[in-house]
Amino acid sequence: MRGLMASAIVCVCLFLSAASAQQPPPAAPAAPVTPTPIAPAIRDTIARLQQQAATSELAYEITESVTTEVGARMAGSPEEARARDWAVAKLKSLGFQNVRIEPFPVPYWARTYDRGEIVGPHAQKLVIAAIGGSGATPEGGLTAEIVRFTSLDGLTAAPDSAVAGKIVFIDEPTLAAMDGAGYGLGVLKRGLCAPNAKRKGAVACLIRSVGTHSHRFAHQGGNARARDGANIPAAQVSPPDADQLTRLLRRGPVRVKLEINVEVKDDAPSGNVIGEVIGREKPEEIVLISAHLDSWDQATGALDDGAGIGIVTAAAKLIRDLPRRPRRTIRVVYFGSEETGIHGALAYARLHQAQLANHIIASESDFGAGRIWRFQSRFGAANMGHAPAMHQMLAPLGITRGGNEGTSGPDITPFWRSGVPVFDLGQNGMDYFNYHHTPDDTLDKIDRAELRQNVQAWVTATYLAAETDWVFR
Amino acid sequence: MRGLMASAIVCVCLFLSAASAQQPPPAAPAAPVTPTPIAPAIRDTIARLQQQAATSELAYEITESVTTEVGARMAGSPEEARARDWAVAKLKSLGFQNVRIEPFPVPYWARTYDRGEIVGPHAQKLVIAAIGGSGATPEGGLTAEIVRFTSLDGLTAAPDSAVAGKIVFIDEPTLAAMDGAGYGLGVLKRGLCAPNAKRKGAVACLIRSVGTHSHRFAHQGGNARARDGANIPAAQVSPPDADQLTRLLRRGPVRVKLEINVEVKDDAPSGNVIGEVIGREKPEEIVLISAHLDSWDQATGALDDGAGIGIVTAAAKLIRDLPRRPRRTIRVVYFGSEETGIHGALAYARLHQAQLANHIIASESDFGAGRIWRFQSRFGAANMGHAPAMHQMLAPLGITRGGNEGTSGPDITPFWRSGVPVFDLGQNGMDYFNYHHTPDDTLDKIDRAELRQNVQAWVTATYLAAETDWVFR
Repeated sequence: MRGLMASAIVCVCLFLSAASAQQPPPAAPAAPVTPTPIAPAIRDTIARLQQQAATSELAYEITESVTTEVGARMAGSPEEARARDWAVAKLKSLGFQNVRIEPFPVPYWARTYDRGEIVGPHAQKLVIAAIGGSGATPEGGLTAEIVRFTSLDGLTAAPDSAVAGKIVFIDEPTLAAMDGAGYGLGVLKRGLCAPNAKRKGAVACLIRSVGTHSHRFAHQGGNARARDGANIPAAQVSPPDADQLTRLLRRGPVRVKLEINVEVKDDAPSGNVIGEVIGREKPEEIVLISAHLDSWDQATGALDDGAGIGIVTAAAKLIRDLPRRPRRTIRVVYFGSEETGIHGALAYARLHQAQLANHIIASESDFGAGRIWRFQSRFGAANMGHAPAMHQMLAPLGITRGGNEGTSGPDITPFWRSGVPVFDLGQNGMDYFNYHHTPDDTLDKIDRAELRQNVQAWVTATYLAAETDWVFR
Repeated sequence: MRGLMASAIVCVCLFLSAASAQQPPPAAPAAPVTPTPIAPAIRDTIARLQQQAATSELAYEITESVTTEVGARMAGSPEEARARDWAVAKLKSLGFQNVRIEPFPVPYWARTYDRGEIVGPHAQKLVIAAIGGSGATPEGGLTAEIVRFTSLDGLTAAPDSAVAGKIVFIDEPTLAAMDGAGYGLGVLKRGLCAPNAKRKGAVACLIRSVGTHSHRFAHQGGNARARDGANIPAAQVSPPDADQLTRLLRRGPVRVKLEINVEVKDDAPSGNVIGEVIGREKPEEIVLISAHLDSWDQATGALDDGAGIGIVTAAAKLIRDLPRRPRRTIRVVYFGSEETGIHGALAYARLHQAQLANHIIASESDFGAGRIWRFQSRFGAANMGHAPAMHQMLAPLGITRGGNEGTSGPDITPFWRSGVPVFDLGQNGMDYFNYHHTPDDTLDKIDRAELRQNVQAWVTATYLAAETDWVFR
């Protein structure tokens, strides 16, 4: 999961409202549509695939492998390069075809240290994490009084005089919701606190972690490089630390010292890793399923997005191992540098611009490892019958039918914006923001049974799209 | 909570078995004893006190105050001195009498930094926390292969050749239990890994955190100063990091780099803070109720032991505010430097040796803020009737009757060893070791309703001991 800045608006849309989407125009939620019939042989194969997925540990093993052997893998870092090597070896060993890296450069940002403390009569340390794109503090740190707002709007409404020379502190809780509805606001705040605060003369920005837990973890997130001069130091504080600041503010002014140092580079190496199951009849028609390879640096990125890597790969592998390959090509893409600005997806769209018309459908798994609870589509009006048909096959897995406004994961944004249809398998993200972008996003947070249900759903939608001759536009 | 080394054995006993206690010899669990009758006026007052405690927020306010205004307060540190100042002001403002500090010197140990990382092809950072008493690593850190054991016994049984030149890694889970039964083993391991490993030629020691959660927190704990040359670097790793090491060991040898630096001093200032409700008839007879003022430095010590400070103070304050002070003196003691070796309790016992015979009964609240579920006593055989009587008054609070082997908190050790009777109000510690000694021991972990139930129990036992003329020896 990601967000922010130039591309913040894009990603906020993913969560706030897909109504702003440009194309394809979602079909109006009109009269019920007759489901497209599904051939019995396809139904049978899907039933068999679901059964196999119900006992397969492959998704878990892949997630275990990348999180254990590579660990954290920040966009543009040597660790991300190691992850690409891992990915190539893994995809080859699983028998995928055309395994390759498509390299691209990314702006690189990393924190080298980030420390915060309350100074004065109540001196104590804070748990903070620099927001991606944060500027560094001067040598020796900066110290200033904090000024608290309960929302980004509060900051916007404040006169410059209330903010100038101070550290802005936005203390707003994050809503826990199955569909991640609370995250949009968090992304906005995370991206806009620093530039807005800077415009008003503030020296730094702190926000309450965009997280739904009450543990002493500060969340990361944000874009790779500050643009528009929006580079004052900015960090998230853990929820208990945010509470502590608020309690102390009731007693009087609070001064905080921040020491943040960062490393930035203009063109760091990143890349997408691709493996395929080449279609037996229409190899040029692509069913693209994906996840992202990079993570933030505090944890091993098990939920974000090791699980996604495991889920889509295991689904494709089950199909690859069928007696007969499907009609169309299944292209598994591990996008690079998603966290710092969906750079991999944008690079893919640039490189494959001419072939996007051949992309039958696209989807990404990037919301953890919780059970799939909702299927959404983004199909053309003329082909809406495929949506209830696809849902028929998913329903036995306990999956409800959503609307036609699906956008899937952040990396799918350039696809649906270019008219590529989408299937969107919504995971239960009720506890996702307890771990997301924190040091706590580790393998033990994955429920194996829920992970298997994910693979059941992915193998279903993927096989159906790859084996039929359905057009979804 | 604490443990270790010279005094480790003492504190392990608290959890493993009180059978090793020297005196007073616990009464045999023989025939049922007739409860001592309680005067109706006392029953009425207790009922009223329980009612008041049921709605009083004072314990929470006190806990909020020390954790917010002081924060972390390591034994012998300037922050602990600030906590003493806070305590004196708080006790005076609440109307306690004879408020004073009894200073004593302590050996001081603090980590200045502690970092760990896996090196080599799977390079990644670890979350660790140096164990109290850990030695420093050489300048630039030390790097060595780790050798894993699943228990301290495994290390003990290993030949020197398996360990020499390596970093010992003891990877043993901690049992969650209401009464903290899993902690004894943890304390042993935490205290003995380093000296045992050193004797076999190891260069450092890592243990899986003595914790019952699966979060990325490393626990602290241990004594203030290494003795017996047991000063090789030693640290706890978070449970997910321990799992990660174990997974990597399945793939081959794992090398870890540790960088630990510590500051030690011989005679740092510490002290106990005391406030009293002077008895109206027998002021020289002391009912001692206590908690400890110091904490480890990663968190604000809300459960360990801010809550204890809040509970015993609120209970004493409710009694102080009665129309008539109780017969005997209630002495509230905030012990200093508990975590690093019950130094405050030992200093108190030395200073007050001659008056210990006048200590009618003693108890400490130092196991978090969970509901009191069990009452245990440590009364003389001739006075066992007071135990079912005290329990009669506690039973309406949902408290069961345990045996006569109660030892209460760690700071009570020198008291019961000297023959002072004990009442022991056992808290539900099922989730205590999720937070204990981690960065996550913050105010939000306290359930206010459970905290109020604690005060109900404490005000009951304390008032009964202070208002009756019962002798418990």
